[in-house]
Amino acid sequence: MDSISFHKKLRGKLTIKGKVPIRDMQDLSTLYTPGVAEPCRKIAEDRKLAYEYTMKGNSVAIVSDGSRVLGLGNIGPEAALPVMEGKALIMQQFAGIDAFPVCLDTQDEDMVVETVKNISPVFGAINLEDISTPKVFDIEKRLTDELDIPVFHDDQHGTAVVVLAGLFNALKVVEKTDDSKIAVVGAGSAGYAIAKLLRAAGFKDITVFDSKGAIHDSRNLSNYKKELAGLNSSGYQGSLSGFAGADVIISAASPGAVPEDAIKSMEKPGVVFALSNPDPEISLQQAERLEVSVFGTGRSDCPNQINNALCFPGFLRALLDFRVKRITDEMKIAAARGVADTVPEPTRNMVVPDVFDRNVVSNIKSKVKEAL
Amino acid sequence: MDSISFHKKLRGKLTIKGKVPIRDMQDLSTLYTPGVAEPCRKIAEDRKLAYEYTMKGNSVAIVSDGSRVLGLGNIGPEAALPVMEGKALIMQQFAGIDAFPVCLDTQDEDMVVETVKNISPVFGAINLEDISTPKVFDIEKRLTDELDIPVFHDDQHGTAVVVLAGLFNALKVVEKTDDSKIAVVGAGSAGYAIAKLLRAAGFKDITVFDSKGAIHDSRNLSNYKKELAGLNSSGYQGSLSGFAGADVIISAASPGAVPEDAIKSMEKPGVVFALSNPDPEISLQQAERLEVSVFGTGRSDCPNQINNALCFPGFLRALLDFRVKRITDEMKIAAARGVADTVPEPTRNMVVPDVFDRNVVSNIKSKVKEAL
Repeated sequence: MDSISFHKKLRGKLTIKGKVPIRDMQDLSTLYTPGVAEPCRKIAEDRKLAYEYTMKGNSVAIVSDGSRVLGLGNIGPEAALPVMEGKALIMQQFAGIDAFPVCLDTQDEDMVVETVKNISPVFGAINLEDISTPKVFDIEKRLTDELDIPVFHDDQHGTAVVVLAGLFNALKVVEKTDDSKIAVVGAGSAGYAIAKLLRAAGFKDITVFDSKGAIHDSRNLSNYKKELAGLNSSGYQGSLSGFAGADVIISAASPGAVPEDAIKSMEKPGVVFALSNPDPEISLQQAERLEVSVFGTGRSDCPNQINNALCFPGFLRALLDFRVKRITDEMKIAAARGVADTVPEPTRNMVVPDVFDRNVVSNIKSKVKEAL
Repeated sequence: MDSISFHKKLRGKLTIKGKVPIRDMQDLSTLYTPGVAEPCRKIAEDRKLAYEYTMKGNSVAIVSDGSRVLGLGNIGPEAALPVMEGKALIMQQFAGIDAFPVCLDTQDEDMVVETVKNISPVFGAINLEDISTPKVFDIEKRLTDELDIPVFHDDQHGTAVVVLAGLFNALKVVEKTDDSKIAVVGAGSAGYAIAKLLRAAGFKDITVFDSKGAIHDSRNLSNYKKELAGLNSSGYQGSLSGFAGADVIISAASPGAVPEDAIKSMEKPGVVFALSNPDPEISLQQAERLEVSVFGTGRSDCPNQINNALCFPGFLRALLDFRVKRITDEMKIAAARGVADTVPEPTRNMVVPDVFDRNVVSNIKSKVKEAL
């Protein structure tokens, strides 16, 4: 069945079920009044007990204001809902998480922050999704500072974790190290987070490119791009076409953002992740012709699918299970190790596991545990 | 198992499930990217299509700020959560509604209104619950004015509907009419809504009492109590003890609020609903001794349990199914008729149906449909 008919038939991909039936008055008085007063009183004395007596500890809010949904742009909260429901479906099926879509009828930064704070008591973690940049960076930072539950922006960190996982294995395949010269193309949510996580993981030679070329200190930059300029240790100021000798090119931009010249002048064997979706910056055919050694995309019909779904179910599972209050770089790097290690013998056509590999979630969880 | 152990074992009474499994990449691309883009685009063109392609049309937010939970007072949002989960459980089991608890970390009227507005795109109706008076009256009014989905305050209207249903049948039993002289005791959410709904249903002789006695125009009153004073057609200004000749006393106050003298001086056969929970204003033993003809309470171990669960599942089912934008008195009166008619032959010990009577929801629905 095509997607639109299937969505119409389902009228919502999620349903909220009781874990137990209410069969009689006895059940009703245990699960509702008057019995329910007892857990209420306990939690009133110590609000942390909400983790013991309520759904809080397994609940995630998937929050979007609909301002930048998939590649569809600013389509609003109702139109974002099918995506958020799909995300919740994946969290439940892959990691047993009770995730609820929160699509906001405001795109004002302050109101998004206030609203998420106000609804936070029911949730054990917040997943921000499809909110436009740079606003989302501030929203993430403010919520992280003000809430005592973890705040995860999947468009940034989910992508960055899976890219890092793929990079760990790709470098094994091409026998290179963290001295590799890396170009990150695109300075939106994904590019920003990828560059920062790669640096945190020990990669030192990172140059980030936006539509105007390399991001460097001599340009007039926003605060967020200034951070990226700070990573540019070589001081390169030119275009991506003229960027010679890269070992790795990771692009989270749009078709056309990576010129063939940039790939031709790479230091072989080269690694290219072209993450624009559904049409990658470089096609598989181009990559083969240009003799890219390890090539990854966001597509399911190409090898090496760099898919956020490899990260967010397991990572949120870990955040909930270990009652993490604040996400650290170490946890994200550990999650990347967990994803990477799920592939026992990486090859050029398998640097990340299959999305349906049942071991991914548990591997992420055990690695994150070590990083607490 | 006792309530606290049961709550601890469950760790949340609700779970959020997918309606369909994701078995393979084909499912993933139908239910998530790239297939999901199609319903997103359609809804972006016409947001009403969220009712066709998402969970919106069957979703209810159960909203509380924890400011007045059961008889426990202002215990905060986390401590309110077990109650809201229980309510959601009942909505699902009795009426197939996907209800989600929204417990707010703010008790500021403006912020409650803004927050509920901001999260409204995902929901087909809002159920306000356990929010203190008089703030909740303003919150309900403002949300009703500003949202295009219905806003139902169960503590008011759920109680009022079931009381009206019980009264319809009780008056049949005692062979009295809507000329009956009625005392409503308590001017909180329930008393306020009961008095107003009874007037809307055609009862003309209603006197409302608060802790200072009858509410009348010569007192210095808040706007809400002024409305109640406007119902006092007899102009009675004294205490409840001195209120002679009542046919009906409905109390939504606290133990001790209804003195025996008030009952002794009723016009027999009398109807008394003593709704304070868990301890009613008048015990069953007292009611028998004072020869009350029809006696109702909130308790499950007495006859005539006036329980909101007789109303809210069916009424919200109707609001969702008929895509009601704004609740009217006519709809509430119709719901009361639906509840009342579920008892084919009312007796003094059965003026309302059993909470588990499967016909209640469908009867409410068919009556509300006639009132649209």
